[in-house]
Amino acid sequence: MKIGLLGHGVVGGGVRAIIDEGATWEVRELEIAKILVKDESEMVDPRTTLHAEDILNDPSIEVVAECMGGLEPAHTLLKKALQKGKHVVTSNKKMLATYCEDLFETARENGVTVHYEASCGGGIPWMASLDRTRRVDDIDSFRGIFNGTTNYILSRMYSEGTDFEEMLKEAQELGYAERDPSDDIDGHDVRYKVSLSCVKAFDTLQNIQDIVTYGIRNIRKEDLDWAKANGYACKLIGTGAYRGDFISACVIPMFLKKDDVFANIPLNFNAIESRSKTLGPATFVGQGAGSLPTAHAVVQNLIDIWKNQDPEINDKSIRPIDNTLHTGVFYIRTKKIALFADIMDRRISEDAFLTRKISLVQADMAVKSAVDDTLFIAEVAE
Amino acid sequence: MKIGLLGHGVVGGGVRAIIDEGATWEVRELEIAKILVKDESEMVDPRTTLHAEDILNDPSIEVVAECMGGLEPAHTLLKKALQKGKHVVTSNKKMLATYCEDLFETARENGVTVHYEASCGGGIPWMASLDRTRRVDDIDSFRGIFNGTTNYILSRMYSEGTDFEEMLKEAQELGYAERDPSDDIDGHDVRYKVSLSCVKAFDTLQNIQDIVTYGIRNIRKEDLDWAKANGYACKLIGTGAYRGDFISACVIPMFLKKDDVFANIPLNFNAIESRSKTLGPATFVGQGAGSLPTAHAVVQNLIDIWKNQDPEINDKSIRPIDNTLHTGVFYIRTKKIALFADIMDRRISEDAFLTRKISLVQADMAVKSAVDDTLFIAEVAE
Repeated sequence: MKIGLLGHGVVGGGVRAIIDEGATWEVRELEIAKILVKDESEMVDPRTTLHAEDILNDPSIEVVAECMGGLEPAHTLLKKALQKGKHVVTSNKKMLATYCEDLFETARENGVTVHYEASCGGGIPWMASLDRTRRVDDIDSFRGIFNGTTNYILSRMYSEGTDFEEMLKEAQELGYAERDPSDDIDGHDVRYKVSLSCVKAFDTLQNIQDIVTYGIRNIRKEDLDWAKANGYACKLIGTGAYRGDFISACVIPMFLKKDDVFANIPLNFNAIESRSKTLGPATFVGQGAGSLPTAHAVVQNLIDIWKNQDPEINDKSIRPIDNTLHTGVFYIRTKKIALFADIMDRRISEDAFLTRKISLVQADMAVKSAVDDTLFIAEVAE
Repeated sequence: MKIGLLGHGVVGGGVRAIIDEGATWEVRELEIAKILVKDESEMVDPRTTLHAEDILNDPSIEVVAECMGGLEPAHTLLKKALQKGKHVVTSNKKMLATYCEDLFETARENGVTVHYEASCGGGIPWMASLDRTRRVDDIDSFRGIFNGTTNYILSRMYSEGTDFEEMLKEAQELGYAERDPSDDIDGHDVRYKVSLSCVKAFDTLQNIQDIVTYGIRNIRKEDLDWAKANGYACKLIGTGAYRGDFISACVIPMFLKKDDVFANIPLNFNAIESRSKTLGPATFVGQGAGSLPTAHAVVQNLIDIWKNQDPEINDKSIRPIDNTLHTGVFYIRTKKIALFADIMDRRISEDAFLTRKISLVQADMAVKSAVDDTLFIAEVAE
């Protein structure tokens, strides 16, 4: 099966290497026919080209694998590939979560499929496991530590009592965090992954703006001190759940009980869990990034297409997210504590309190209307 | 696809319930045609029978699913089913590990397959993940907390400083441990699972007696005190590895570093991890037992057969296990400490010491020749 590869960086280079090496008979059925690169300095392989048309207009290429990153030109190139009747595999979570309605619709119209195992959790076989579980069960809910950078920061802050800025700096020095860390620490990266997990788990598309998202930018040592003193660990969690006819989905720091498997996921590891009626909780743990694990996930999707196995059903529709049925107790620290009297249950300190059991929508509205850019919110596990 | 179900207890009843309910279109392709039960009191369903021949001689039944437990008559019935050209699914780890050469050979001769997802880790999709990973990578090694009972006992002893007998009694009262706990605490249950994991990971059969096996029967509070004081947790670990042309495989308590994911698997949870070249470590965590999760795994195998997907390759051969390449440092507590001068590196207390870095074979020979039925051995993670 001939493949056109878009991008030859960390992930794309790994895909090319795994397929060229051909360690198994399944991988030897795959062939990288052409590779789109950015400039002449990358033209180290006779298959490289600077012109996407060389791939899009080649009828012998059945599948396009995109590992470029960024919104454009990735989105436009994949749309054109789908229109030309080519299947698509992507590791680009931000692009796919942003343009999911457009790309799934185009795939459906052209009788081809979009695969995105590598978009969540690196090599963790999360999407494949959801597909497999759904052969027997509906998925009731999922939750995940989807971001290794923030887990590294939270784990180290928790175990060593250090402060946020110090750990962020260290994560940047280790190469875990980008120089502009906003995608990680403000929760955007997790939001994309939650959105794509909802697509796979529930067959629904959503506007990513509807996924309530809080990150860890404002967390302080004092927040973790309270958590620890009360028997909790702190993790940044992305969740989705099917509640009645509605999907709830959010990204929020959570204070988790210490005997929760998720409370004990160390350093930069990821963990993702689905829950369903007969299987119950099923949890997957791994390093959520890295060239070869992510490339492995892309190659697995290519084999899925070659085997025509569990083809992605493209008949999905946008469904609004409703977080009113997501209820819980929230820890909030804010310099405007007087504004929160309505939802307050118990004051913890001069500027922190626990809410009554309220919906995430109520909590979110109260926080948004307070307009406090130092505010930290976490959900407290029951 | 018509299925003959052998056994209608905890797991068999779950399989029948999931298939009768038919929650997905895949499950609705399956049909329980007949159910073998033990006596008339179990004949509550028109499909039940007391005669295995009703299933074995029914040519419309393509698959036999065995959930009886025990060595016989399970082994003989499955062998007959294979000889009649029926595929086989089993949740019976002890029987399959004991008769693997006979049953895989019979399957190969008759052009049918043996499936055993439910034999390890309850609902954890361990075998399916090995199959999927092997499409791209060879498996280098695996390790697992394969037994929930012993993990419960070790976790509670560790966190509360209690002694073994007390925790075993509690596990028995909670229904986690059998009245005769030998299969769990002496490591036999893990040994069966290691053997079957080797079949799936490495395509090799082994004599289970060759898998060096130590349990936790002799562990004492003082052993865990030393582990804790030196930064380790203790878990009962089953491992298998491909080393050159040889397979090493063993079951042994391990002192694991605290930031190891496995060190933090709480209570009665199971965890299993594979390592391979491009995927790296991939870890699965779940409750390793229970009626519905185990039944879910059986139903998944039935769907695999119906889809003729990743058929189990039966061309496997017995390969001797060689643990000489498995080297490590071992913690040994024994009342015959004078006998161990050859392998001792550092004395810890009057009756406990750490070995030099030696092979598991050396450690095992020294322990066996000392003949001390109070001896406790654990491998210390490097």
